[in-house]
Amino acid sequence: MSADRILSRCRELAAITDVPGETTRTYLSPAMRRANEQLMAWVAAKGFTVRYDAAGNLRIVRAAPIETNRTFIVASHLDTIPNAGAFDGPLGIVLGLALLEEAPPLPFHLELIAFSEEEGVRFGFPFIGSKALTGELTDDLLARVDGKGTSVRQAITAYGLNPEELGEAQLHSGHFGYLEFHIEQGPVLEHEDRSLGIVTAIIGQSRLQLVFTGKANHAGTTPMHLRHDALAAAAEFVLAAERLGRNTPGLVATVGQLSPQPGAGNVIPGETVLSLDVRHADDTVRHGSVETLLKAAHAITQARGMVVSFAAKLDQPAVPMDPKLTALLAEAAAPCHPLSMTSGAGHDAMIVAPHLPAAMLFLRTPNGLSHHPDETVHPEDVQLAFETGLRFLERIADV
Amino acid sequence: MSADRILSRCRELAAITDVPGETTRTYLSPAMRRANEQLMAWVAAKGFTVRYDAAGNLRIVRAAPIETNRTFIVASHLDTIPNAGAFDGPLGIVLGLALLEEAPPLPFHLELIAFSEEEGVRFGFPFIGSKALTGELTDDLLARVDGKGTSVRQAITAYGLNPEELGEAQLHSGHFGYLEFHIEQGPVLEHEDRSLGIVTAIIGQSRLQLVFTGKANHAGTTPMHLRHDALAAAAEFVLAAERLGRNTPGLVATVGQLSPQPGAGNVIPGETVLSLDVRHADDTVRHGSVETLLKAAHAITQARGMVVSFAAKLDQPAVPMDPKLTALLAEAAAPCHPLSMTSGAGHDAMIVAPHLPAAMLFLRTPNGLSHHPDETVHPEDVQLAFETGLRFLERIADV
Repeated sequence: MSADRILSRCRELAAITDVPGETTRTYLSPAMRRANEQLMAWVAAKGFTVRYDAAGNLRIVRAAPIETNRTFIVASHLDTIPNAGAFDGPLGIVLGLALLEEAPPLPFHLELIAFSEEEGVRFGFPFIGSKALTGELTDDLLARVDGKGTSVRQAITAYGLNPEELGEAQLHSGHFGYLEFHIEQGPVLEHEDRSLGIVTAIIGQSRLQLVFTGKANHAGTTPMHLRHDALAAAAEFVLAAERLGRNTPGLVATVGQLSPQPGAGNVIPGETVLSLDVRHADDTVRHGSVETLLKAAHAITQARGMVVSFAAKLDQPAVPMDPKLTALLAEAAAPCHPLSMTSGAGHDAMIVAPHLPAAMLFLRTPNGLSHHPDETVHPEDVQLAFETGLRFLERIADV
Repeated sequence: MSADRILSRCRELAAITDVPGETTRTYLSPAMRRANEQLMAWVAAKGFTVRYDAAGNLRIVRAAPIETNRTFIVASHLDTIPNAGAFDGPLGIVLGLALLEEAPPLPFHLELIAFSEEEGVRFGFPFIGSKALTGELTDDLLARVDGKGTSVRQAITAYGLNPEELGEAQLHSGHFGYLEFHIEQGPVLEHEDRSLGIVTAIIGQSRLQLVFTGKANHAGTTPMHLRHDALAAAAEFVLAAERLGRNTPGLVATVGQLSPQPGAGNVIPGETVLSLDVRHADDTVRHGSVETLLKAAHAITQARGMVVSFAAKLDQPAVPMDPKLTALLAEAAAPCHPLSMTSGAGHDAMIVAPHLPAAMLFLRTPNGLSHHPDETVHPEDVQLAFETGLRFLERIADV
């Protein structure tokens, strides 16, 4: 299928929205139903088997020409953030659909899954679609409510589906692998002048909150040498985190929130609360880096006669992609000189990979811009990704 | 008068409040009227002349035993911030009243002024009382309204005063000097182990807002070397300001507000807005310091491929106290080994000094704590201040 066709399909999906004038499509919304109907319409004449599972995932199966239970999944998500671009999620679905339509006969079933939920917008937690596959949609999660007080369970029922049938959404013994196409949502491929990236792992993530406590005082009457400025201490820490990130290959360390108190121009901050986000593909490196930064925070505050406290908010392990599938994907992509890289963001593949061999292909994101209406993708990269997908499917028959 | 008596009078005034359970006394409030009545009651039998001027300042004049127009002012403010301590303002009034009561006969009138407004609470701008003395209560200021839409002019009328008579509040040709006692509201005297400070100048102040603009990006997918982190740049600037303050005698430089945007833990800040407060007794040093810091901000952002913009919000010149009066005050305080120092905060003396020779005496503030119910003052320091005041009045007859 031509890249132009794939891109125009993405644009058509982007026009299907709950909020006119932008692209906003949340879990089990009217626009999501219409988008799924559009997917089905494109392949209506193909003889594929189509069903919704009980989590609202659309599942389109191209049957193998032979008797087999073996099924390979190509998947991505159909939901979007509010005021989204056209490619984060849907591009992976449209590429997958194109593979179902145009791949040569294969000795296994090919299943496209359009996940109903990945972004976490409606219910405040993500991956509802892929967690249905892995049996992780617990009663607790199903009881969570949206802004109107509707639970996940109620939303499923209201959509015309039966939450009691969630078991049938799960992976079955014939599923033998998973592939996800996704835009990179970062600047690395563009910076390296590459079209495609082979994802080796979804990197692990630590999130912490640190509180630097000094002493609030009058900015005019308190000489510099008698201050205990909590913002200045926090500033040292921000730079320490940046320095460690720069000096540790593969590490990213970010302070995204920082709030000095009382926050008046003429008062020396007595307290500063900040967030720390540390990610690395190797959990040992990540944990060591967090420890290094907490030690730095203690040293900084001790030198200033202050104190620091912290609370761990998240410790999410890295999720490696399947080495064998990933190697095959790299072979298939070899003509495009792909970059081997980690994913700094979470994706459905992160949920699936602990349960099923999974591989992931990134497409270059112009200007690293995503989660924005101006999000784009280069047609030539889409072409290369599609061709890589075709070559990959031919290679995996023996996996 | 004993320090104990002076302190107990301050405590009695502190009990006169608009908000039960704390000390809150704003401009022309019922509590302010009662506090003024208390001042008058303490000296009812003394034969002093008492009047309100049209700004609500209470003016108590002890007449000289000789025929003269020469009048020396001792003044401080009676209003408070919300939930104030007992000494910021009232201590200067109670000390002044004690001088009127106990100073030996002097060849000039001695006028105590209890300023009705210094803190800026009710109308959002300060120094209403002292500006009435200097003729700076413009029509524009009189038209300003409080939270209930009442203008200064209306508030004066409602209090039973006549704003048309503001001219009679102004300094007259016989006024020849001004003295203000005030708690330091800072840690310097305590740190230097001194009771009293001779204020040489109210330091000048620059306030600016700086906006650091980088690029917001995903904290997971954007490697360190491809970031333009506006918070990291701002952190460098915070430390540059602190460093310059530490390395420049008499300079204080403070970043009290700082706000990274978008302010999410998993997003690299694309913009950071911060406040800069720079103060010094020498306006040339202050202006040079601001220039140095703006250059530093440009260098920091240039090195990071970012930009910075700034807006000047305030450029308030330093106000020197009168050298001759100040020298006499230092002589009078000599037995107490006072510290010669600048004031980092604004005071009524700052308004009066450009119009009338003014001097100011600071009293040590335990723990540097003011604008707080726990604000205190040492009785021995109050005793020394009172005795200094007595000696000072004897010295100024020939000024």
